[in-house]
Amino acid sequence: MHNPEEFTAVYKPVVEKALAEAVSYRGPYDGRVWEAMEYSLLAGGKRLRPLLLLLAAFAVKGSYDEETLQCALPFACALEMIHTYSLIHDDLPAMDNDDLRRGKPTNHVLYGSGIATLAGDGLLNLAFETMLDAVKADPAPGKIRAAAAIAHAAGPHGMIAGQTADLLAEQKQEISEEHIQFIEHNKTGQLLAVSLAAGCDLAGGSAVMRQTLEDAGFLFGRAFQIQDDILDATGSAEELGKSTGQDETNGKATFFSLYGLEESRRQVRKLSDEAVGLVETIPGAPAGLLREWILRLINRNR
Amino acid sequence: MHNPEEFTAVYKPVVEKALAEAVSYRGPYDGRVWEAMEYSLLAGGKRLRPLLLLLAAFAVKGSYDEETLQCALPFACALEMIHTYSLIHDDLPAMDNDDLRRGKPTNHVLYGSGIATLAGDGLLNLAFETMLDAVKADPAPGKIRAAAAIAHAAGPHGMIAGQTADLLAEQKQEISEEHIQFIEHNKTGQLLAVSLAAGCDLAGGSAVMRQTLEDAGFLFGRAFQIQDDILDATGSAEELGKSTGQDETNGKATFFSLYGLEESRRQVRKLSDEAVGLVETIPGAPAGLLREWILRLINRNR
Repeated sequence: MHNPEEFTAVYKPVVEKALAEAVSYRGPYDGRVWEAMEYSLLAGGKRLRPLLLLLAAFAVKGSYDEETLQCALPFACALEMIHTYSLIHDDLPAMDNDDLRRGKPTNHVLYGSGIATLAGDGLLNLAFETMLDAVKADPAPGKIRAAAAIAHAAGPHGMIAGQTADLLAEQKQEISEEHIQFIEHNKTGQLLAVSLAAGCDLAGGSAVMRQTLEDAGFLFGRAFQIQDDILDATGSAEELGKSTGQDETNGKATFFSLYGLEESRRQVRKLSDEAVGLVETIPGAPAGLLREWILRLINRNR
Repeated sequence: MHNPEEFTAVYKPVVEKALAEAVSYRGPYDGRVWEAMEYSLLAGGKRLRPLLLLLAAFAVKGSYDEETLQCALPFACALEMIHTYSLIHDDLPAMDNDDLRRGKPTNHVLYGSGIATLAGDGLLNLAFETMLDAVKADPAPGKIRAAAAIAHAAGPHGMIAGQTADLLAEQKQEISEEHIQFIEHNKTGQLLAVSLAAGCDLAGGSAVMRQTLEDAGFLFGRAFQIQDDILDATGSAEELGKSTGQDETNGKATFFSLYGLEESRRQVRKLSDEAVGLVETIPGAPAGLLREWILRLINRNR
């Protein structure tokens, strides 16, 4: 592995093949919910969380070995299922009411809100089913720790707290910076941070290494979110494959809307420097690639 | 324990105390989703699934001991969280659009559809977080098997398949008996069957005993569902604490609507006899109480 592009070229298809297999089932009267699950799960995207988990596991292990990959893959898939379920539910008319995602109609536009609700529920359940089947087949302590950490990060102490704070923020006139940070820390940060921390668990990393990676994940998550807001405000729908200017239209407060473009860009640089500084404490080639990949992701323009 | 009433009087408060503790948290900007979760989780109800799990565990163990209770309690709570999340999502305008549940306004009527969606998601996540924390604290094989089985029963191979088939059935002119059986087997049956099977796992029961209890759970589930449909058609909202006549109003096909009252009652008796016959193969006093309780539940009038 010489660069992030090569890493992505090798492991993204591995993740996507496993995801496709996980939603290939069709029962006699339930085919439509599996189609809806498949539609959103296989709609593309960066596969950021599963690839972060795999790369963190390789970084902690110090090598790109097959054993680490096979151990980590079910958990990588579970993260993508959880991320996708949260997007399906976020897009619902009852929530953000968004009709375009990754350049395609959102789930409820195609399948209706009832099936879209169930498809989200289905993917969340399937994420835990996938992890628990892996634990049942081989109850290694690292797998149990990873599954428990992912449950915490996705749940009401994690991502759902952020989604709630986000939903309530839209109904307010003014939002404090603390409120915005709470949203970003939980809605985006928790799942990104646990991608790195769970990767460490699965590769048998130390408690110190785990904390370092989790901290780096939260810093990266904040930088990634602010960059997302910058792109929403300055990019085009064509470039991004999703509706832009949504934050402004919805009167949504973000770090960007509070502090403007220049300060947002400065903040992104500061946070990404800190994140990369933390990952630098981990030796080996895969950790170097993780640093490079984090920088590349933060400095993306789509 | 001399009868089902005594069992319920002792263990229902234990379950409800643990449930109350699980949703007592309030974060700085996410309090509303916790309130919504608490509202539905503590809205009463029979606590059927958690109590079935506990009684199955006691039946397999052959005693009402504290160790079995403490081992099984997190899984009992998880089942009630999963059941409650499914009710919150089922009641949403995008699904059944029901505004009365257990004699109280449904979650979205009080909190709005956005928060209700998140409260459902929150309870589902919390169920897995609760089980995985228990597994992490003590990774006994029976706990891992129980958690994996519950994930399977709740997910798109289980309850969600039934909810999907149910939602699609409402859009059809005519429904086959096979389609109705698929709905009942999955939407109600899977979670009831896994209540008994997971209880067996947690108490370290044999594979034969587990299969017996799972089969009994599915038979009980069918009987319970047909009895539910009979009550929906013949009971009053006041008696039941929920809207009645909903199935007919929604043009919903059920065993009752296909075969009428007399045949439905006959079927309930037949299924409950079969379920009880299976449980009779398990020796000991708690198994006797489980049989008696199943009969009592099926022959309820509210």
